Amino acid sequence: MYRPEIKVLDCSIRDGGLINKWQFSDEFVRDTLKAVSDAGVDYMEIGYKASKEQFDPKEFGKWRFCVDEDVKRLIDGVELKTKLACMVDIGRVEEKDILPKSESPFDMIRVACYAKDVDKAIKLTDIIMSKGYQTTVNIMAVSTNLEREIDEALNDLAKTDIPIVYVVDSYGAMYSEDVTFLVKKYLLSMPGKTVGIHTHNNRQLAFGNTIQAVIDGANMLDASVYGIGRGPGNCCLELLLSFLQNPKFNLRPLLKLIQDHFLPLREKIEWGYIIPYMITGMLNEHPRIAIAFRDSKEKDNFAKFYDMLTTPEPEDIIKPII
Amino acid sequence: MYRPEIKVLDCSIRDGGLINKWQFSDEFVRDTLKAVSDAGVDYMEIGYKASKEQFDPKEFGKWRFCVDEDVKRLIDGVELKTKLACMVDIGRVEEKDILPKSESPFDMIRVACYAKDVDKAIKLTDIIMSKGYQTTVNIMAVSTNLEREIDEALNDLAKTDIPIVYVVDSYGAMYSEDVTFLVKKYLLSMPGKTVGIHTHNNRQLAFGNTIQAVIDGANMLDASVYGIGRGPGNCCLELLLSFLQNPKFNLRPLLKLIQDHFLPLREKIEWGYIIPYMITGMLNEHPRIAIAFRDSKEKDNFAKFYDMLTTPEPEDIIKPII
Repeated sequence: MYRPEIKVLDCSIRDGGLINKWQFSDEFVRDTLKAVSDAGVDYMEIGYKASKEQFDPKEFGKWRFCVDEDVKRLIDGVELKTKLACMVDIGRVEEKDILPKSESPFDMIRVACYAKDVDKAIKLTDIIMSKGYQTTVNIMAVSTNLEREIDEALNDLAKTDIPIVYVVDSYGAMYSEDVTFLVKKYLLSMPGKTVGIHTHNNRQLAFGNTIQAVIDGANMLDASVYGIGRGPGNCCLELLLSFLQNPKFNLRPLLKLIQDHFLPLREKIEWGYIIPYMITGMLNEHPRIAIAFRDSKEKDNFAKFYDMLTTPEPEDIIKPII
Repeated sequence: MYRPEIKVLDCSIRDGGLINKWQFSDEFVRDTLKAVSDAGVDYMEIGYKASKEQFDPKEFGKWRFCVDEDVKRLIDGVELKTKLACMVDIGRVEEKDILPKSESPFDMIRVACYAKDVDKAIKLTDIIMSKGYQTTVNIMAVSTNLEREIDEALNDLAKTDIPIVYVVDSYGAMYSEDVTFLVKKYLLSMPGKTVGIHTHNNRQLAFGNTIQAVIDGANMLDASVYGIGRGPGNCCLELLLSFLQNPKFNLRPLLKLIQDHFLPLREKIEWGYIIPYMITGMLNEHPRIAIAFRDSKEKDNFAKFYDMLTTPEPEDIIKPII
């Protein structure tokens, strides 16, 4: 599939940090950045911008905050072709933490929100755009929304200058037919805007669903190296580039990065095809209960986890483990 | 997706045996059979029938041969709802090894062949059907065939009584669009026949491509528990059942089986998303070179493997490892 409009965003550090509270070494992040850049990927999202009044820097690594000076130190001396991005959550960032673009290494700041909070996301993107950044709105967990809620959010977004709006399969619950339904709806509801896709791999469908989104017209694609990300992780960047067949992409730096850094990391922290995440994906549920279960002594008792989530009134059974 | 015509075949032992030469314990095979049956799966393929003159029973486990008496001993006392199947390769089985169905525990014997050998497959299925069995023809590696070769094979098969013909993505090289192209071609070329799908998971597309085949009209679906199978393995049976939403299927026995048997086995033998298999899938190549590489000291040197396969004349580099 070759379509020159397609852009790829690597979210390895941002989404992967959800597993280890962004406690990556500088060497790890710098080598990832170099490889992603050498691979020809358009954007790399290096973390979240968030308020240090809300998150304790003793607990969370520096990519939870993405202070501009930290990023500048990281990329000092690195020849970068990729543009830098970070993400903000509604209500977790202070306006003062967002410097004017001329003083920042970031090109893009993305806003994640639920459909019900799209008005707040629009307000925040207004601030971000007024400071000179590119931006996107990523509507999370749309697999749990009624069509009316989605339509309302898209109608509000259609009236704005926000250039890119994402379909986000937060729970890894979508099939290709759901992706088609949503990507086509987004394109029809917001003429002129680019539609993005961000998938999760609970059911080994992250790559397949990203391909489906491309077929349906999505032109902004998220992926992460070796699929790193919370729970089951994301669409694998190396798979995505092999599909896109654009001469600007180069797979080899990613393969070297995986063998040098991501295989050893995978021995220490887990992501990928893990049955409790497959079950939450199947049930269209947030992965938090699977994360708690994987942190318990019974982490491999898949039948018990299944029983817990499919028992009519599971609260009493679930409480002890979370 | 609910369509009552859909049948599912588990090939865990048959395809998984390609990793360990079918050296499964009787307990492992029996527990798999019970769980697959309790899960409501229509067929379980328990191995290959093959000549002991061609394969040494000292080297290969009993499911390389599927002697009827061995199967009878295995299922003695087990209440089975699933039907038993085995596979034969052209030229690797003797007619005398195929007893009349009335003397055999098998309901189905499937024939695997390449497109160029479809005439031989038809001859063998004639024998199998004359002995009273259900049968299928599984045309392997069609991702490497010219359309003319496929058309010729399908035209020959259309004239026979063989009820089921499979699209087989042997190299894990297909995208959903390839699956659509082939399933629709098979259906159009062979009116009245059921089309089957057998995928490989080199690029995490086995489940997604199986879903695509269902959308396009395939009604016979192969899968294996936890995806076990040579190299990257197959479509995961537990994922497939969760998609099919037919009340006859029950996921829980498979989850219990995975935690009791397949997780421990996965510690001893490998299958799944492993970069060298991703590379052979991307290049539409047989996985044999990746298998050899994974058996070498450099098994995690993904960049080297990539260089080997994408260097214009790699023979001299590859020879030492295979």
